[in-house]
Amino acid sequence: MAFQPALCPRFHKAVELIGRRWTGAVIQLLLQRRMRYAELRDVIPEISDRMLSERLRELEEEGIIDRIVIPATPVRVEYDLTTKGRALEPALAAVGEWAQRWSDKPRSERQPETAQSPAHAHAHARTARRRP
Amino acid sequence: MAFQPALCPRFHKAVELIGRRWTGAVIQLLLQRRMRYAELRDVIPEISDRMLSERLRELEEEGIIDRIVIPATPVRVEYDLTTKGRALEPALAAVGEWAQRWSDKPRSERQPETAQSPAHAHAHARTARRRP
Repeated sequence: MAFQPALCPRFHKAVELIGRRWTGAVIQLLLQRRMRYAELRDVIPEISDRMLSERLRELEEEGIIDRIVIPATPVRVEYDLTTKGRALEPALAAVGEWAQRWSDKPRSERQPETAQSPAHAHAHARTARRRP
Repeated sequence: MAFQPALCPRFHKAVELIGRRWTGAVIQLLLQRRMRYAELRDVIPEISDRMLSERLRELEEEGIIDRIVIPATPVRVEYDLTTKGRALEPALAAVGEWAQRWSDKPRSERQPETAQSPAHAHAHARTARRRP
């Protein structure tokens, strides 16, 4: 009987949340500093107002960003990551490292510079027969 | 003049690739072992044949998976990660760790168990004025 791989629902939800159109980009920008709505729009010229508003609302509902209203004239709105949102930094950094090493590279032309750490080796175990 | 956050196009492309509907799930499964088409479909009952085929073709075009044809009767097709695909493991593991710690938790109820490592501290530097 071959080892039966399983899907982790929490992983699944998380990876599709951060990979939603423009969501990873917004989080990457807010990891750099707290930003106003208009600043986010300026750095992502391809995004529509409607989509940016929608993404920000989703991230607020997920507890990943805070919407901060500053009582000035006119009122100013800024966005910042929550503790939960900031905790995404190692994951997004790892995605960025992969992208830097492997973008525009074929499947195995160049090995990553660092060896696989033992902590990750378990996922590579092949318990199934390769040629049943 | 406030520090101007910038978007990394390679990161942006990568995060939306792995976050595409069911793509992260397929990679997570193939990290566990090489699988046949029908096995993937069985583990992801919600996916349609059309979408699974499309995702597998995209991942093959990106050099992330190999499509392996085994000359048996009937011919058998299996999918496995390439070196480039397997290099996603640390990033996906980090997303999984975040999901385990923070799913269903509000923005800051519970701190992560481990402190932020110094290697990641740079992204937290606030070079912008908070109240200009």
